[in-house]
Amino acid sequence: MFIGAQVSLYPMTSDFVAVITDGLEALTSYRSDLRIETDDMSTLMVGAPEALFAAIRDLFAAAARRPEHVTMHVTLSRGCPGEPDDPSCRCEALERAQEQGLAERQALAAEAVTGAPVAGVEIDVQFSLYVMGGGDHMEEIYGCIDFLKKSGTFLRSKNFCTRLRGDAGAVFATLQQAFLRFGPAQGHVTIDLTASANSPSLR
Amino acid sequence: MFIGAQVSLYPMTSDFVAVITDGLEALTSYRSDLRIETDDMSTLMVGAPEALFAAIRDLFAAAARRPEHVTMHVTLSRGCPGEPDDPSCRCEALERAQEQGLAERQALAAEAVTGAPVAGVEIDVQFSLYVMGGGDHMEEIYGCIDFLKKSGTFLRSKNFCTRLRGDAGAVFATLQQAFLRFGPAQGHVTIDLTASANSPSLR
Repeated sequence: MFIGAQVSLYPMTSDFVAVITDGLEALTSYRSDLRIETDDMSTLMVGAPEALFAAIRDLFAAAARRPEHVTMHVTLSRGCPGEPDDPSCRCEALERAQEQGLAERQALAAEAVTGAPVAGVEIDVQFSLYVMGGGDHMEEIYGCIDFLKKSGTFLRSKNFCTRLRGDAGAVFATLQQAFLRFGPAQGHVTIDLTASANSPSLR
Repeated sequence: MFIGAQVSLYPMTSDFVAVITDGLEALTSYRSDLRIETDDMSTLMVGAPEALFAAIRDLFAAAARRPEHVTMHVTLSRGCPGEPDDPSCRCEALERAQEQGLAERQALAAEAVTGAPVAGVEIDVQFSLYVMGGGDHMEEIYGCIDFLKKSGTFLRSKNFCTRLRGDAGAVFATLQQAFLRFGPAQGHVTIDLTASANSPSLR
C-alpha cells in the first residue's frame, strides 16, 4: 500500500512566502514519520494516515491562526496501483476494515470524530471522495455521506463535493475517517480537498 | 449526462478580492452557455465541455496576465451517478467516443491540442484523472498518460498527478482531451486540477 498527499498552501496576502515558510515549520515534528518533499507547486507527504492527517491539519491550523485569508488544496491517495508498496504507510484501521461491514465502519468513524483533539481554530472544507475500480462504488459513497451528515462537521452538499465546517481537529478527523473507512480496504481511493479560513465572504 | 466544475481562484496578494472580481468578469460571455453560481468557496459551472473549458481557461489566463502569483483549483466531473441528466451538457465528442478505440481517441486528442488557440500566457498545471466504476480503469489512465507525454505540454510525472506546462490555450486543450477521451464515454470521470502562474519559485 502507498499512502500520501500533494499539499499546497495559498495565503491570500502579498506576504505569502513568509506564511508558507512558517507553515512548513509546523511539519518539523512529522519529518521522522513522513517523507516530505516540496517543489514549486506542492509538498509531497508519504506515510501512515495518522501522521499524514495530523501533519496536514497542523500545517493548515497554523496558517489559519494568522489573520489573513488562507486556503489549502490537498490531493490524497491510497492504494494507487501505479505506486510501489511502502511499508511506512502500513495502517491498522485499513487492514481491519476488510472484515468490517458498512454499519460497523460508520460507527467507528463517528467515534473517532467525537474523540478528535480540539485545534482551537474554525475552518471550512469542501471535498470529494473517489472510489476507483470495480464493485458498487456508489454504495460506499452513500455510506460515507451518511456518516458525514451525522459527524457534527457537515455543512451541506454541493454539486461534486461536500462542505464541512468546524474546529480543524474535528474536520480533519472527519476527512481521515472518510478516507480510511469507505471504499475497498485494499482498493484505490482518493480525496480532492480544499480548505479555507478567514474568508472575507463569511464576515 | 451532467458535466461541470467547482472552480476557485487564489491570488497571492493582499488585493485578492479585486483580482477575483476582475477574473469573474472574464466569465461574462459564457453566462448564456453555462450555469454559473459563486459561493464563499468556489464557483460552480455546469454545461457542455467546449464552453466549460474555455471559461475556466479564460478565467485563469486573465488572472495570470497580471503580475501577481495566482493559483486556481478545479474539480471537474462528468457522468456522476448522483447528479441529474442535463441536456445543456450534451457533448458530441463523448457520444462518438463510445465507438472509438484507445488509439483513435489518442490521435483525436493530439490533433485537438495542436489546433488549440494561443492565449499568450505561460502556466503550470498539475492534475489527476480519476475513472470510476468497473472495467480496467488503469488501461485508460495509462492510455491517457501516453497521450499526455506526446502532447507538447507534458512536464513530468509526480506521485498522484501529472505536471503540464505551456501556453494556457494548449494546456487547457490537453486537459479537456484528457477529460473527454479517456475512461468510459458514459462513465463517471473526474479531474482534480491545480494551476499556477507567476510563481516566485520559478524566477
